[in-house]
Amino acid sequence: METFHETEIRVRYAETDQMGIVHHSSYLVWFEVGRSDLCRARGFSYREMEEEGDALLVVAESYCRYKSPAYYEDVLTVRTQVAEARSRSLRFHYEVYRAEDDTLVAEGETLHLVTDRNHKVRSLPEVYRERLLDDGADAFPEDQPPS
Amino acid sequence: METFHETEIRVRYAETDQMGIVHHSSYLVWFEVGRSDLCRARGFSYREMEEEGDALLVVAESYCRYKSPAYYEDVLTVRTQVAEARSRSLRFHYEVYRAEDDTLVAEGETLHLVTDRNHKVRSLPEVYRERLLDDGADAFPEDQPPS
Amino acid sequence: METFHETEIRVRYAETDQMGIVHHSSYLVWFEVGRSDLCRARGFSYREMEEEGDALLVVAESYCRYKSPAYYEDVLTVRTQVAEARSRSLRFHYEVYRAEDDTLVAEGETLHLVTDRNHKVRSLPEVYRERLLDDGADAFPEDQPPS
Amino acid sequence: METFHETEIRVRYAETDQMGIVHHSSYLVWFEVGRSDLCRARGFSYREMEEEGDALLVVAESYCRYKSPAYYEDVLTVRTQVAEARSRSLRFHYEVYRAEDDTLVAEGETLHLVTDRNHKVRSLPEVYRERLLDDGADAFPEDQPPS
Repeated sequence: METFHETEIRVRYAETDQMGIVHHSSYLVWFEVGRSDLCRARGFSYREMEEEGDALLVVAESYCRYKSPAYYEDVLTVRTQVAEARSRSLRFHYEVYRAEDDTLVAEGETLHLVTDRNHKVRSLPEVYRERLLDDGADAFPEDQPPS
Repeated sequence: METFHETEIRVRYAETDQMGIVHHSSYLVWFEVGRSDLCRARGFSYREMEEEGDALLVVAESYCRYKSPAYYEDVLTVRTQVAEARSRSLRFHYEVYRAEDDTLVAEGETLHLVTDRNHKVRSLPEVYRERLLDDGADAFPEDQPPS
Repeated sequence: METFHETEIRVRYAETDQMGIVHHSSYLVWFEVGRSDLCRARGFSYREMEEEGDALLVVAESYCRYKSPAYYEDVLTVRTQVAEARSRSLRFHYEVYRAEDDTLVAEGETLHLVTDRNHKVRSLPEVYRERLLDDGADAFPEDQPPS
Repeated sequence: METFHETEIRVRYAETDQMGIVHHSSYLVWFEVGRSDLCRARGFSYREMEEEGDALLVVAESYCRYKSPAYYEDVLTVRTQVAEARSRSLRFHYEVYRAEDDTLVAEGETLHLVTDRNHKVRSLPEVYRERLLDDGADAFPEDQPPS
């Protein structure tokens, strides 16, 4: 029911390390690119949400499982999904595929707390919440638990 | 029983992002610095293990929980521990503290597969294994399971 | 006569720093993306040149002038040009524009030595040379200096 | 007469690329580490200058010449010097040496404009200026040109 948003990425030389493959920290950066792109696809920019909505998505947890190495110049598809939306937190799920052979390269999750610009936890403004979920993501608002 | 190895790090400007705090991907880089430093403290260099021992520690999983933001110029202590040592994999555990006030900034884990330079899984050479564990880390070699 | 190749880039969150703008080291990474993309546009991949042609373009010099800050989510156009092609070195020129308002954000150059995989200087294989120059870049091969 | 400040750095795995050497963008990050460290050595923190002095050193130009590759785990000495101090700009010069064999690995320069937090050019507050120059750097204040 929750559909993935797809973002295409091409591996940069600077993202490799001396093992000849992509450095594992690059995936967290790509997940972030996927999140930004999902927001745009749902009708708002993450930058605008920070500046005008005073809502920041601070990363509270990150997890990544590396299934197959990615190489310089590989074209990858980052599939991003809102996995869970509570009133003050969001969980995203990601899958990274190599476009050429449809290999699953990595998958992961990030958990975010919603804060204002002073890093105080707050609720996600309704306007962004609706847009994020407008694709049917699994929502469990804390004040209205699912029956 | 398994002691932590401590590495001191000072937050670089380039490691911050526009939120005014350290970008979450930097922690994976610091964990890696902690691993390298633990190896040196146990009597060998990770570089030498790659070059002469033909043993690479490919990252298979990473996890990080961000507890408190870190800021530019903060002095941090990365505490690194061999959490589990199987014949073909190693798990490390990390804790990052702010030196000044002893706040836990983040904690995490990485799981590594041991491979040769052609990315084929192999056993960790005994000489490195012994040194890594020489501090009493919890070892469960696959061929000699704990009784 | 030497035309620019254009590559579009969107600024990533991780590329910003606590000043709220793009960190200046990111531009060198984008220049590199521009080079890779120019090679593809001229009919070969830089990865293939390294692997099959045994020709690496080691960076010998980099220069960047930052004219106007770039911000998270900005869409930028990296314009890349072969500025000079000698038998054992290549110089690229870059201009980075903000797509929205056509502001010049930065411009720079990189000088590269051609080496084999053992980091020994060599000539650029003719096949890559021809393709790179196929757009009329200013060529001064060392063995045939311009009269 | 202008003395260098020395900062020791150990090359991180993440700073290498698939060429097996340090990625050229890492040097700009190390130059920045050198600047921060020079400030501390001269009695103030760059972070405090940004926060309390409302003076930011925005990078206007960067230049680096790469003389010899650096490798993972190399211990490097970054030598940083105030090359020129005008009322609204500062130029730093850097040299990076491999500690082991005293090889010059790279050298470079950065030019900075002094701005307030709204990115408006301003004069460097006198207190920071004095400290930076307190080591005899070559100063040409615009309002008091050298005779």
